[in-house]
Amino acid sequence: MLRQVTLDDIRPIAIGAGILGTGGGGNPYLGGLHLASVISEKGPQTVVDPFALADDALVCVAGSIGAPTVSIEKLPEGTEMSRALRLLEEHIGRRFDAVAIAEIGGANSMQPLIAGLQAGIPTIDSDSMGRAFPEIQMSSFLFGSDATVAPYAMVDAADKAAVVPCAASDLWGERIARNIAVSMGARAGLVACMMSGAQLKAAGVHYTLSLAHHLGRRVIEAQEQKSDVPQVVADVLEGKVIFSGKITDVDRRVSKGFARGGVRFESFNGADVLDIEFQNEFLIAFINGEVLATVPDLICIVTEEEGEPVTTEVLRYGTRVAVIAVPAPAQLKSDVALEVVGPRAFGYDVEFRPLPGGVIGRRPVG
Amino acid sequence: MLRQVTLDDIRPIAIGAGILGTGGGGNPYLGGLHLASVISEKGPQTVVDPFALADDALVCVAGSIGAPTVSIEKLPEGTEMSRALRLLEEHIGRRFDAVAIAEIGGANSMQPLIAGLQAGIPTIDSDSMGRAFPEIQMSSFLFGSDATVAPYAMVDAADKAAVVPCAASDLWGERIARNIAVSMGARAGLVACMMSGAQLKAAGVHYTLSLAHHLGRRVIEAQEQKSDVPQVVADVLEGKVIFSGKITDVDRRVSKGFARGGVRFESFNGADVLDIEFQNEFLIAFINGEVLATVPDLICIVTEEEGEPVTTEVLRYGTRVAVIAVPAPAQLKSDVALEVVGPRAFGYDVEFRPLPGGVIGRRPVG
Repeated sequence: MLRQVTLDDIRPIAIGAGILGTGGGGNPYLGGLHLASVISEKGPQTVVDPFALADDALVCVAGSIGAPTVSIEKLPEGTEMSRALRLLEEHIGRRFDAVAIAEIGGANSMQPLIAGLQAGIPTIDSDSMGRAFPEIQMSSFLFGSDATVAPYAMVDAADKAAVVPCAASDLWGERIARNIAVSMGARAGLVACMMSGAQLKAAGVHYTLSLAHHLGRRVIEAQEQKSDVPQVVADVLEGKVIFSGKITDVDRRVSKGFARGGVRFESFNGADVLDIEFQNEFLIAFINGEVLATVPDLICIVTEEEGEPVTTEVLRYGTRVAVIAVPAPAQLKSDVALEVVGPRAFGYDVEFRPLPGGVIGRRPVG
Repeated sequence: MLRQVTLDDIRPIAIGAGILGTGGGGNPYLGGLHLASVISEKGPQTVVDPFALADDALVCVAGSIGAPTVSIEKLPEGTEMSRALRLLEEHIGRRFDAVAIAEIGGANSMQPLIAGLQAGIPTIDSDSMGRAFPEIQMSSFLFGSDATVAPYAMVDAADKAAVVPCAASDLWGERIARNIAVSMGARAGLVACMMSGAQLKAAGVHYTLSLAHHLGRRVIEAQEQKSDVPQVVADVLEGKVIFSGKITDVDRRVSKGFARGGVRFESFNGADVLDIEFQNEFLIAFINGEVLATVPDLICIVTEEEGEPVTTEVLRYGTRVAVIAVPAPAQLKSDVALEVVGPRAFGYDVEFRPLPGGVIGRRPVG
């Protein structure tokens, strides 16, 4: 298990979280550069085992909100996360003991490391999705406990900030935060969901930073050994490679604070067509028009040769990829969870047919 | 001058502020019903002369933000203003001594009376427009002093709230508040623009609650005497009746938190056509295609016979009206002000040709 994050750990985390992000969470390469600059200045960041937290510890989650497309166009000022954290602390009049990960996907795996380093508190080896999702309420911390998203704080690269002390529901909290994020150029730092150590332990998807790191290391090893990297990714995550082919069409737009659209692939022999639709993250995959995989299971796209993550914002014609379906963590598959993160929550009138098995959220060995 | 507002004062204020609102500020009839219910419960509200405030008094402004169209469809819960005021007080850690009027137009003339009554502080006989404008930064408290719109607090009819501690500029403050208001159903209570008594005295448009009340009383008298009510309105405000005719077309939509559109009138003899375009408020009037009047001068529409205000949300085919142009207060006509509230600020590439004279913002006699 990961005890701290040093400069050497950034590339594995960027790869692993890029894959787990199912297209979203923000560009992992740029997130890695940002984290590297903060670690270079302040030293490694401490990572704590969620079960080492006191039950009455006060924790929060941190992440970027917006459209991944914007994350490669509008760079951060750099201190958004810790400014949002301090703003929320001022609002509630208490200090946080540690910061958890909203979503392990993409650059959002690293924002809580940056926030923690800048604020002087450790980062918890837990997130609330075991992947990335586009909307705030899609968090096991929220649907799996009685924590609420509000109060929360948002800060942008310029001198703009907002605190939302209460929202009628977590869904309304998302709607307000999304509109504030749009006012901030579709990218803002968000610190939210204050909860106790006990709540985090009960509702979180644990050890996902360690898992991202482990996955990234296995990918790098496989690259060095010239193995079949996509198959290694599938093996590590107990998933399966469901398609190999070339991107032949991309329809991507930024709308109401999200990147939305679809991407089409053709198999190398030209026999099959795969379509994936996305809202920041890849939501549903159709093979020759039939549903092949859906949320909450992960639909991960990696480059065919290197097994590097292909995120929503870098999809482009001609890229040769493998598509891997990965079983979602158990926390996302309960009836309560599926109401929030199942296919119908995204407007798809299809049943969720879970892939068997899965390692996300399991305690890693060693 | 008005010293307090009782039940009997509501109808005059509703008429006067309805006229001064140039179409916006929220429906004055519904605002009056709301104020009546609060006065019935708590008694009359005290109104203070702005120049009676201590220089170091801490004051704020209160008003509804959103689209007037929504104000007749989505009724308030009733305590939005005072909840927003308390929320801002909690955020800054200080109490306000009095509350000023953001805009004297429409129901927004009455929101600070409601806020003050509910919060137990007096309402100041000053606003920052002498009319209504659609956007927050269009306030003489802001462009006429070094006060800033943030920190501000917003609350809606449900359990939703937001605090914006800082904004890069007042224009950004408007953009964020507008998007939050959209998340709140295009209607929210807003308390903003904390300032000192000295700042208010220097930058405000004073005695406009008294003026609205006086105007409303003169309208009621003229109605009783069967006088030419539109002409009385013009006389009281040193304006002129620029058109009489019938509404023949209305194009009105709610877009991005505003009511936007245009209205067409034909003169009773069919010889002339008047077009008015609006963004919550009436912005520009064209007679047979030529510019006749523009912001910041007031373009007021009243019913032809009764001289009752016709606001944006109740424009409809067939209404017989008089259109009155009224000179804006001096505070809106400086170069600095015209950059924010002149025709070009609304996208019209025309010069502002001010009407001569004007009484808005002048100290009333007696």
